[in-house]
Amino acid sequence: MYSFANDYSEGACLQIMEELIKVNFQQSAGYGLDEYCLKAEEMIREEIGQPQADVHFITGGTPCNVLAISAILKPYEAVISADTGHINTHETGAVEATGHKILTAPNDDGKLRPEDIRRICDAHTDEHMVKPAMVFVSDSTEIGTIYTKAELKAIREICDEYGLMLYLDGARLGCALTANNNDLTLKDIAEMADMFYIGGTKNGALLGEAMVIVNDSLKENFRFYIKQRCSMLAKGRIVGVSFCTFFNNGLYYKLAKHANRMANALAYVFRKHGIKLYGNSTTNQIFPILENSLIEELRKDYVFLDWGAYDDNHTIVRFVTSWNTPVKEIIGFYDYFNKLMENRTK
Amino acid sequence: MYSFANDYSEGACLQIMEELIKVNFQQSAGYGLDEYCLKAEEMIREEIGQPQADVHFITGGTPCNVLAISAILKPYEAVISADTGHINTHETGAVEATGHKILTAPNDDGKLRPEDIRRICDAHTDEHMVKPAMVFVSDSTEIGTIYTKAELKAIREICDEYGLMLYLDGARLGCALTANNNDLTLKDIAEMADMFYIGGTKNGALLGEAMVIVNDSLKENFRFYIKQRCSMLAKGRIVGVSFCTFFNNGLYYKLAKHANRMANALAYVFRKHGIKLYGNSTTNQIFPILENSLIEELRKDYVFLDWGAYDDNHTIVRFVTSWNTPVKEIIGFYDYFNKLMENRTK
Amino acid sequence: MYSFANDYSEGACLQIMEELIKVNFQQSAGYGLDEYCLKAEEMIREEIGQPQADVHFITGGTPCNVLAISAILKPYEAVISADTGHINTHETGAVEATGHKILTAPNDDGKLRPEDIRRICDAHTDEHMVKPAMVFVSDSTEIGTIYTKAELKAIREICDEYGLMLYLDGARLGCALTANNNDLTLKDIAEMADMFYIGGTKNGALLGEAMVIVNDSLKENFRFYIKQRCSMLAKGRIVGVSFCTFFNNGLYYKLAKHANRMANALAYVFRKHGIKLYGNSTTNQIFPILENSLIEELRKDYVFLDWGAYDDNHTIVRFVTSWNTPVKEIIGFYDYFNKLMENRTK
Amino acid sequence: MYSFANDYSEGACLQIMEELIKVNFQQSAGYGLDEYCLKAEEMIREEIGQPQADVHFITGGTPCNVLAISAILKPYEAVISADTGHINTHETGAVEATGHKILTAPNDDGKLRPEDIRRICDAHTDEHMVKPAMVFVSDSTEIGTIYTKAELKAIREICDEYGLMLYLDGARLGCALTANNNDLTLKDIAEMADMFYIGGTKNGALLGEAMVIVNDSLKENFRFYIKQRCSMLAKGRIVGVSFCTFFNNGLYYKLAKHANRMANALAYVFRKHGIKLYGNSTTNQIFPILENSLIEELRKDYVFLDWGAYDDNHTIVRFVTSWNTPVKEIIGFYDYFNKLMENRTK
Repeated sequence: MYSFANDYSEGACLQIMEELIKVNFQQSAGYGLDEYCLKAEEMIREEIGQPQADVHFITGGTPCNVLAISAILKPYEAVISADTGHINTHETGAVEATGHKILTAPNDDGKLRPEDIRRICDAHTDEHMVKPAMVFVSDSTEIGTIYTKAELKAIREICDEYGLMLYLDGARLGCALTANNNDLTLKDIAEMADMFYIGGTKNGALLGEAMVIVNDSLKENFRFYIKQRCSMLAKGRIVGVSFCTFFNNGLYYKLAKHANRMANALAYVFRKHGIKLYGNSTTNQIFPILENSLIEELRKDYVFLDWGAYDDNHTIVRFVTSWNTPVKEIIGFYDYFNKLMENRTK
Repeated sequence: MYSFANDYSEGACLQIMEELIKVNFQQSAGYGLDEYCLKAEEMIREEIGQPQADVHFITGGTPCNVLAISAILKPYEAVISADTGHINTHETGAVEATGHKILTAPNDDGKLRPEDIRRICDAHTDEHMVKPAMVFVSDSTEIGTIYTKAELKAIREICDEYGLMLYLDGARLGCALTANNNDLTLKDIAEMADMFYIGGTKNGALLGEAMVIVNDSLKENFRFYIKQRCSMLAKGRIVGVSFCTFFNNGLYYKLAKHANRMANALAYVFRKHGIKLYGNSTTNQIFPILENSLIEELRKDYVFLDWGAYDDNHTIVRFVTSWNTPVKEIIGFYDYFNKLMENRTK
Repeated sequence: MYSFANDYSEGACLQIMEELIKVNFQQSAGYGLDEYCLKAEEMIREEIGQPQADVHFITGGTPCNVLAISAILKPYEAVISADTGHINTHETGAVEATGHKILTAPNDDGKLRPEDIRRICDAHTDEHMVKPAMVFVSDSTEIGTIYTKAELKAIREICDEYGLMLYLDGARLGCALTANNNDLTLKDIAEMADMFYIGGTKNGALLGEAMVIVNDSLKENFRFYIKQRCSMLAKGRIVGVSFCTFFNNGLYYKLAKHANRMANALAYVFRKHGIKLYGNSTTNQIFPILENSLIEELRKDYVFLDWGAYDDNHTIVRFVTSWNTPVKEIIGFYDYFNKLMENRTK
Repeated sequence: MYSFANDYSEGACLQIMEELIKVNFQQSAGYGLDEYCLKAEEMIREEIGQPQADVHFITGGTPCNVLAISAILKPYEAVISADTGHINTHETGAVEATGHKILTAPNDDGKLRPEDIRRICDAHTDEHMVKPAMVFVSDSTEIGTIYTKAELKAIREICDEYGLMLYLDGARLGCALTANNNDLTLKDIAEMADMFYIGGTKNGALLGEAMVIVNDSLKENFRFYIKQRCSMLAKGRIVGVSFCTFFNNGLYYKLAKHANRMANALAYVFRKHGIKLYGNSTTNQIFPILENSLIEELRKDYVFLDWGAYDDNHTIVRFVTSWNTPVKEIIGFYDYFNKLMENRTK
């Protein structure tokens, strides 16, 4: 039974596995100070056009978010996020566990808007309230939508107006940057964000993300945070090797682009049958709004997640494709779904 | 210039000051283990009809909330509150600073409802999310409204259904219990809440609140929390003496009732002039919706707080009365406001 | 039965009680922004010779320490203290509860020494260890000893060498500054420490301490910490009034001097009978080393604390005098103890 | 230049790499709920003789320690450890960052003793101090020594006497269990510890450790802690596959035994030249006490760590061997060192 449950169902992409094997028995320094990490850091600095940026390799996405937030904020400061943000919903209170409040804004499309930020900042006026000090966005968002360059710029501008740091969660940044409707580049993001991470786990690494610190004032002693927050690997080289491979000949983008294409194809299948997609994602997560009885049937043959009730008869579900989704599985789904829908209309 | 800014503008009520002086030079044990505290604990157990309850005297309201929440919850557990709840808005992230997330429900009247609790619990299904484990309510609420017995019972029932602890913030519990439309008693609250506090600071004590722990499972080692969370007084006797005085001949209720009466009178003045009161509080905080130009004039002669914008021309303001608000100040305001409004309509 | 258990067995000194009564029914701003606090801040700035210092009134000593440490340190930074320091032994892990490690040095006299600081700093070399960033000292110390000006200066110098902040816990600063062998002034301390507090609770206030921030870099948003860490009083005026009274005509020093004199007299009584005093304190806490059988007898008539075993037959006990210890109680003890010892030698 | 710096200088052992490749493109559930993890959990339960134990796979050793301590302790409780314990020295205050104090005992051999535990517990008597509630030991210790069965049993007994939980850090448990002088088995440890982890990273896994929870009262909702503390891998299967491989035909022990043998051989080389070994470790870390001038020469050809000054002319250094240390490197070192010493005596 094929699974569209997520984009981390398999190991690593072939190229990364090959590189890991190649260096497996070579000795190197521990804790991310090895030659592979150093080389990957250099490659990323090049890729993002920021020769002075600091790059650190971290075990996963939640650790990245926790690290960024706890390193940026003073104890009484808070982070602003869309209420659907991963930090607010799917990190088991990891941010609060470091002592910080998340100030949230409701939304329909997974995105935070400048006016949300303004409203929240204006409402926090004295020492009886937390002090908003940073903004959290993710690209792509929890529902697969992406920020345009203009949107991100507007957020940057309001951050400047209010003296806020801007942090971008790039768990699925590859898919955002290779979406058909995207107009952002890694260089743009590095120019606008104070800190962000380039996701590896969901783009074909065994594990690991690349945290990028652009703002000089946030660089000092960041490795202390990594160690203290349980996010430093003894064999950090695993992640270093992965990112060397990712940014060799644009592999990172190719893997992401493939995931998007497979999702676009799936979206086409659903839309063909008049099924609406919640959020109209252009990246590797799509959210068909399906009749509950149809979901029951689909579950017999495919794995995917419930996302939330839509109405009494419909549920939003999530289909995720990945760097590794075989074209033949999409074709198989196309035939399968056509037949299923045909039978239902009989 | 008289101030309706809050109910802690003066020192303590006369009776408490007299008792403090009476015992001032007597030696007693430190840290709340003195004879006055012990006697006050006994009086409170009697008053609430719970001979087995634990009672602790705490420096203030935010400390009480922090103590209760951090003592009740495990690190991954969260508290459910109205989004207007004091813990969510006016405690500078003190709850999050102990590592816990607050899950919030929007509302129009300061109150949490069973269906909010159900919805939040049902949405938190696995280890990627925090686990709701307690409910926070306050009586009176942030906008002066109160819970009916039926409402609180319904909350208790859903707490039982989902295995949640129920905690009640009683910063202004005196005013709630003596409101005209109240049908709850301290005994009712002690039967329904697992933990709650009886507010002293805002009811005429120099400082201090009485935390009551009814649920046996929450009693163990609570004094460790009080000490660790900076809320234990060396001279805890100050608070003990205050609560002995409060619950002697019903002084606690008399002081609160006075505050309510003064607020009711103020409300009458505003309503007489066709001014609507946001939330229709029956306790000692009222929230007139005033024209902005009127506010400007009023500010020349009275102190009160802005609560929030109502529309382009109107702002919700807060007037608070207290155990110490002189009747003559209310009469003075009546005359003053009549005249002011008369002049404005000319 | 008279108690030498501690210096917070009674309420406030007469002068403070009188001032509290005088202003009791006057309205003032809440949360330490009232006129009494503002005046007391000004008086303290004058007293310490630091016109630019920030002064905040805090509920107690543990809160002061927690506030200072959590405001000064970044999450991965640690505080250096004598292992006997109050923060390391008698605060229920309140400092660790804010996320910080305490690095400790053994000692015989309650004091931290420059070489301890150097050794600890030199041993903390990379991101796998916490980073020492501040030094905690108390004057008087836990065993009543005091720092000389030369000793404190040497600590300041090593703090400068290693880039450490210096914080002084002044719970019993009055007694330190009025000890016979003291050569420090409040002005000296304010010149050397980055932050310190002047203790009120143990010197005759109902409650409250005056936190002084001398170092500009530590001033920003300190009130946020006070609120978040449960240490802000609604009626902050109580403490403001107390400190206005303390620094009017040198009352603060007079009260402390009295406590010292009473302790010196007690020390004389013990020494007269050949009893050694652990630490040879010159302030208001003395630590006689008594035979266990003698302790049993003494306990029938006086209250005092066990401090620790000395050898198989002797225990170190603690006698504390205060601003309020009556001369006649000391004379009474003198006669009593002479008689007791006489009977024992029969 | 060959490195004896640590036991995580290379990737994974061949057998694990082969298994990772074998399953690389198979889909499985995320977050450690995959078939490989489930199978490995079962194999470990079998190996330790505890069919009811819970097993969780964690990213690394510091995360394991943080998870165990923060899951076992209430906010006011503390953990007892040797002062040389990893949690106290090399985790950047990660334990304190979760709010807990570490109570430490000095030692000469890396081990905690029952009398240390008793002394610490007896000294913590009331709510002004933290409450000791668990004991932390590691086997092998930071200096390579191991606990005997009798020693661990004595610790278990005092834990029972004082109501403490016993947790064992098994970062190098393989080397402890295969040391020549060891008399403990995994089954013994599982009978005595409430929680412990079996180290993978330092025994030839790419990353990951197996946390074992034997005590039923500690099992509930442990996955919430893993997620919240940044220690849950999306592709948890990597660790599951590793432990399936480790406990197939005793590979885990074979790898560790090899590391020990190589260290024993190195120890022989040093001892042959009259060089003393600090701690007399029998596991894969040895600590020769070398003349400083000799260290300088050795550093030209080998990598190893300084451990600490011994006297003015000698330093304790650390040589670590691993599952992957080639026999020929040891032979090479033997010849090299003989020659070096010969030249020095000329």
